[in-house]
Amino acid sequence: MTVLPEIPEHGGQVELVMRAFPEAPEPFIDLSTGISPYPYPFGKLQQTDLVRLPEQGEEERLIDAAMQAYGVQSPKLVVAGPGTQLLISLLPYVLKSRQVIVLGPTYSGHATAWRNAGSDVHTVSEIERFREETARPGRVGILCNPNNPDGRRHDPLALLALAERCERVGSHLIIDEAYADFENHISVTSYLPHPALSVLRSFGKTYGLPGVRLGFLLTAETLAERMRSMLGAWAVGTAAITIGCKALNDREWLDQQKMKLVCDMQRFLILCRKMDISVVGHTSLFALARSNEALDLWSHLCKQGIVTRSFSERLTDIRFGLPRSEAGWQRLEHAFKTWRP
Amino acid sequence: MTVLPEIPEHGGQVELVMRAFPEAPEPFIDLSTGISPYPYPFGKLQQTDLVRLPEQGEEERLIDAAMQAYGVQSPKLVVAGPGTQLLISLLPYVLKSRQVIVLGPTYSGHATAWRNAGSDVHTVSEIERFREETARPGRVGILCNPNNPDGRRHDPLALLALAERCERVGSHLIIDEAYADFENHISVTSYLPHPALSVLRSFGKTYGLPGVRLGFLLTAETLAERMRSMLGAWAVGTAAITIGCKALNDREWLDQQKMKLVCDMQRFLILCRKMDISVVGHTSLFALARSNEALDLWSHLCKQGIVTRSFSERLTDIRFGLPRSEAGWQRLEHAFKTWRP
Repeated sequence: MTVLPEIPEHGGQVELVMRAFPEAPEPFIDLSTGISPYPYPFGKLQQTDLVRLPEQGEEERLIDAAMQAYGVQSPKLVVAGPGTQLLISLLPYVLKSRQVIVLGPTYSGHATAWRNAGSDVHTVSEIERFREETARPGRVGILCNPNNPDGRRHDPLALLALAERCERVGSHLIIDEAYADFENHISVTSYLPHPALSVLRSFGKTYGLPGVRLGFLLTAETLAERMRSMLGAWAVGTAAITIGCKALNDREWLDQQKMKLVCDMQRFLILCRKMDISVVGHTSLFALARSNEALDLWSHLCKQGIVTRSFSERLTDIRFGLPRSEAGWQRLEHAFKTWRP
Repeated sequence: MTVLPEIPEHGGQVELVMRAFPEAPEPFIDLSTGISPYPYPFGKLQQTDLVRLPEQGEEERLIDAAMQAYGVQSPKLVVAGPGTQLLISLLPYVLKSRQVIVLGPTYSGHATAWRNAGSDVHTVSEIERFREETARPGRVGILCNPNNPDGRRHDPLALLALAERCERVGSHLIIDEAYADFENHISVTSYLPHPALSVLRSFGKTYGLPGVRLGFLLTAETLAERMRSMLGAWAVGTAAITIGCKALNDREWLDQQKMKLVCDMQRFLILCRKMDISVVGHTSLFALARSNEALDLWSHLCKQGIVTRSFSERLTDIRFGLPRSEAGWQRLEHAFKTWRP
């Protein structure tokens, strides 16, 4: 019986796991996030990219690129921030609601942000219940589409209908589309502007560059202005602007990625089927497995130098990102084969 | 009589000026900011620096480096953010005060942030009046030491005495030390933690890398926690952490810079004396001149491809940053000589 180390609160905490499993073979493979294993090839960053503040025109070009990429009607509806997490953290101050409903389980950052800002947060798991609770005066409802970690999806028309109800009663719907870049058909961005609807889009996951810190809020003009004034000038750095513009304008690369990731995910799902590991859902970038032995599998993989995502609040769940290289795949396959639950 | 273009709200908006002066010789020289002309030589940024989220241990190393560099007693008093401006924007939500006193004229971002958050902001110009107004229950007082744009300085012991008064009455003092890195003797950071005192430090100006977006709030533990929870996870990207750690730990480079910038500023002050331009104050990184012909000088310099900082609210003021190269100096000297007020 292994004594398990503390499960990290977020994915990507490889150092923590390395310390807990000092005997594991290196290099560690990080499958603990839902970040694309294929970073956008932006070339080299020069020091000259960093020696000056971003100019107004540069940020405008980034906003235009995001507007096109996300299919939004006007740049006035787009706010760029240094990572989606910061926009999530600030939304409670932009929207101000005492009662917040989260469709869960989902990314914990939403509930944390609203609780930190002093709101009551209720997590509900049924979409029907979520709709009823969200469509009450003054409330804010939050869901992720597709959902992290279980890949649950929602019909955008049903979400639009909910936003309409929200508008009538004076509540607001936030849809986190962090993982929707490869599935445009489930996105609600084309319905914007809508007074009761805000959408979050994340740059780092799709483009495999989370260290760049870039994310977007797509929302009604007045709310966008409020968020912009909360952020103040120069919230996004020159490097993020340069890389973001280039990547968001490159539709061909995105299409190629989509194909590549579909193949990768197929490979992973087949591997799980072979191993009799039950996958409950997935997106292009991660899959969630459920098993009574999930924690044991997590620990077994850690010992093999492979970090996946375990959840201290749901120990039967284990989430897998995709390996970056054939060597990574082979280590994962080998680790699966040597697992004796 | 030239029709003047709109004066940019902030420094660093070279594109705006270029469009207004299309005949000016290029490349434009940007002296409109108070950013060091000598960027810290951090080497090259690799794509690998950006393909992952910062780990907890990395951010801790950055905080430790900042703690050492700024002479603060504990990492618990240090919050890193993506640029000081964002920390300024969020301080109204961390400190919550209806009545804010700013010692002005100064960097406009402070007043803007508090007004955006719904507070009343009063700008006073006398330090005595500032002290009296700040030391009233529930208020927040803000000053910059040294001040931007006029280089006004304040005795740190007098500031500590004011913080003591603030503590007694239940108000709070924010000191923006964005330009204090080269003048440790005026800094109050060694008095922290103090329940009524918060200090801001800026990375990009001293290290000539504003595009990195990195700034610090140094404050009491409870306030630091509040700011951290507002920012949420991963507020600072991996590139900023890597560059920030390296630069903040490099005391030798900072000492060399100090010498270099003293020489540069001397050269600029001598130039102004020769030209009979009256300098009202300066720091290591900028100097403020005052003249009834300031706007004409600004426009003359723009036509020569040299962008300085004019202020729409004080047209007699013109602020100069330092040229980056000998060629820049010679263009500035030539432009001064060809000016006929």
